[in-house]
Amino acid sequence: MSFSLKGFMFIGFFAIHVVVYSQNDTDAFFIRDIYSHTLTQGDAYHWLTYLSEDIGGRLAGSQNAQLAVDYTKNVMEGLLLDEVRLQTCEVPSWKRGQNELAAVVGSSSLGTHLLQITSLGNSIGSGSPGIYGQIIEVMTLDQLKAMPEELIKGKIVFFNRPMDPTKINTFHAYGGAVDQRARGPAEAAKKGAIATLVRSMTTRTDDVPHTGVSVFNEGERHIPAMAVSTNDADLLSTLLKTEDVYVYMENHCSLEPSTSSYNVIGEIKGSEYPEEIIVVGGHLDSWDLGGGAHDDGAGCVHALQVLATLKALNYVPKRTIRCVMFMNEENGLGGALAYEKESNEKGEYHMAAIESDAGGFTPRGFGVGGLAKAMEEKFPNIREWVDLLGSYGLFIEPGGGGADINPLKSQGGLLFGLKPDSQRYFDFHHTANDRIEAVNQRELELGAAAMTSLVYLLDTYGIGTPP
Amino acid sequence: MSFSLKGFMFIGFFAIHVVVYSQNDTDAFFIRDIYSHTLTQGDAYHWLTYLSEDIGGRLAGSQNAQLAVDYTKNVMEGLLLDEVRLQTCEVPSWKRGQNELAAVVGSSSLGTHLLQITSLGNSIGSGSPGIYGQIIEVMTLDQLKAMPEELIKGKIVFFNRPMDPTKINTFHAYGGAVDQRARGPAEAAKKGAIATLVRSMTTRTDDVPHTGVSVFNEGERHIPAMAVSTNDADLLSTLLKTEDVYVYMENHCSLEPSTSSYNVIGEIKGSEYPEEIIVVGGHLDSWDLGGGAHDDGAGCVHALQVLATLKALNYVPKRTIRCVMFMNEENGLGGALAYEKESNEKGEYHMAAIESDAGGFTPRGFGVGGLAKAMEEKFPNIREWVDLLGSYGLFIEPGGGGADINPLKSQGGLLFGLKPDSQRYFDFHHTANDRIEAVNQRELELGAAAMTSLVYLLDTYGIGTPP
Repeated sequence: MSFSLKGFMFIGFFAIHVVVYSQNDTDAFFIRDIYSHTLTQGDAYHWLTYLSEDIGGRLAGSQNAQLAVDYTKNVMEGLLLDEVRLQTCEVPSWKRGQNELAAVVGSSSLGTHLLQITSLGNSIGSGSPGIYGQIIEVMTLDQLKAMPEELIKGKIVFFNRPMDPTKINTFHAYGGAVDQRARGPAEAAKKGAIATLVRSMTTRTDDVPHTGVSVFNEGERHIPAMAVSTNDADLLSTLLKTEDVYVYMENHCSLEPSTSSYNVIGEIKGSEYPEEIIVVGGHLDSWDLGGGAHDDGAGCVHALQVLATLKALNYVPKRTIRCVMFMNEENGLGGALAYEKESNEKGEYHMAAIESDAGGFTPRGFGVGGLAKAMEEKFPNIREWVDLLGSYGLFIEPGGGGADINPLKSQGGLLFGLKPDSQRYFDFHHTANDRIEAVNQRELELGAAAMTSLVYLLDTYGIGTPP
Repeated sequence: MSFSLKGFMFIGFFAIHVVVYSQNDTDAFFIRDIYSHTLTQGDAYHWLTYLSEDIGGRLAGSQNAQLAVDYTKNVMEGLLLDEVRLQTCEVPSWKRGQNELAAVVGSSSLGTHLLQITSLGNSIGSGSPGIYGQIIEVMTLDQLKAMPEELIKGKIVFFNRPMDPTKINTFHAYGGAVDQRARGPAEAAKKGAIATLVRSMTTRTDDVPHTGVSVFNEGERHIPAMAVSTNDADLLSTLLKTEDVYVYMENHCSLEPSTSSYNVIGEIKGSEYPEEIIVVGGHLDSWDLGGGAHDDGAGCVHALQVLATLKALNYVPKRTIRCVMFMNEENGLGGALAYEKESNEKGEYHMAAIESDAGGFTPRGFGVGGLAKAMEEKFPNIREWVDLLGSYGLFIEPGGGGADINPLKSQGGLLFGLKPDSQRYFDFHHTANDRIEAVNQRELELGAAAMTSLVYLLDTYGIGTPP
């Protein structure tokens, strides 16, 4: 790694990796300490192992979700924060039920073939016996809407548009396909469909079904809805080229009356500007199939580690730094809504909110969002942090936030989303494989250190005059 | 991802992810095609599966190495290149032998404890019966050199300085510790040691030993040398605090007379400047314990995919684009030396050489090296590519090359090293776990697409007047 002195001249233009001690060495050294502490004495991986393996999947309203509330409250209390509390919220109570299955029946080329499926969240079950019907392949919601009702009525609509593997950021590929899972079942129901099968949201071709929420608005008819593995989706599509395909589906999920649960909140009060709040958070609930390790145990332990590291380094913040474990991001946002409501009632100002909900992979940077006025007035003030964070391979770019923190935008601060490397996320997302084995400890810790560094800069310099 | 128009103004300063169509839309669209082809029709993962699983570990001089030569030559021939050939080189013939073991014997607190070990490359075996001796812990080569000979004589030197986990780039941590493995055994031998144990080169704490080469210069005494897992290294260190520790070591490795092997070379002749050569390469040999998937099967299939993609896109290069599978990077560089010799004899000019030898993880960018004159005169010419490559999250920074291509520096061109995310590399490096399961297909393909894009830009624009 030797190069000429002249070569060095271009570092400013080229390098994002080289550690640059610019602006303020105090900042550079403190951020160095943050990284060193997190990588050598961090607890994030240990906490995540407990959440994803000892507790497991944490569907809102479930007993596991309550265990996760108790556990993370306990962790926060151990950090000796200024305040730890539970905040009540209302969450849907969706139960998967036992014995879900789907199979191709009576295929002339295949006979009976069991499909790799999983019921979709917030959908209702077929009951027993299940539903039997012909499947019809549809690639887009628009295509479905343009089809005559008699083509759909009594059939099982099979949504099969793949995530686009040529999108470099897999979240963009997800964004381009997930409408089928979110709204496909309700739209199919409007046309008289008896059930829906949706191609799993992943760029992989494998046997793993990916669950996730389906949205039925008030008054819309609920029908059974399942995700099918990409291998089986391809199989169905191939079969349909040569024969009519009939599928038997049976599941027993139910949407029961909503229940109450909690956000878990801990904070260190600001010593100079306690009314300026910096939130770090992830969502504590997860789907039930796996351990919710990447989604979003990782985000939860990232946020916990931020406060743990600042305490361990004896950092006394000027502003209030608050850690929130949001409940029910996956199928209702009950926690986010309760948090927003109370915050607005109290007239709080969230100067910044940072959410980690994109997995525990190597962090690439932060996306930043906010009201147009906030982006115009305040975003330029954080420009000078680019060198410091860039030293750790992190970018700052417009466009970010998170489902749980987006409601806080109206308070006029900035919203940040941690953006880890996205390549592996949808290998595990909403599947039985989202377990601790899928998480690399260093990658997880680097995410926590990135968030802590951003919090340190936000706290030290602020972002400008409060609105 | 909505943000104000004002927000956009800062993209130039902040974003490295947003696709920027600047300079030349032709370039942007062709690079887009490179990525799309690689991600949807690439063969890199398939080839890597064959290399690492169907063939397996490929130690230079072994039968597997020959199978890998045959296989990659066959792959190149399938690509319908202008020329495919083998280049003879001389490689050492190190054999691990059967039944390697080491154990703590007669510990007052532990009794007998089998250690997780692996013999180090190019070292010689103890034979049978093995070696029994007291171990002495040493943290640095300098510490060893300063110790009186009578302290070392007849003992087993145990090198135990860990890789520094606070280094963000794990290659820097490796670089800061690997002298113990490379030179520790020979230096210990000089002081009269009878054998060496070396802490495995990883930041993980686990039971997996990591092999790698030990260097004995001409005339230096060879002694048995093994790597020990980090868990067992920690155990030994703890034991040594309270008692003298005796270890029995037995292995049967041998360094036999050197033999001949091959580099595999394929190329597309340049249509305008055939005398300006752009090399892409990886090394075909690997350690024997695993499948050599990341090290360096990934680099080999990256390089193969570069040529495959350019052919598939019907790209006619101006310059000669050559793919080289180098033999014997791990324990001798026989392939690199043969390649350099012939190239210099022919008076070739390698305008650019790109090596991928840091794993098949998500690419972060390229390091660039060369003679001072080349860096001064030519490096500035590639500055304008930063926007295009930055759109794919890639940096270009000074400092790079690769063990196999570094000898080409004297020809006056630029040397590039692909720099993937480094966090997981030393989980697998030189272990039995370096298998296809450790490689994510998209991450692998993105590395190939990054290299292909760089080759396209190098070929299209050159880097300035040849020396």
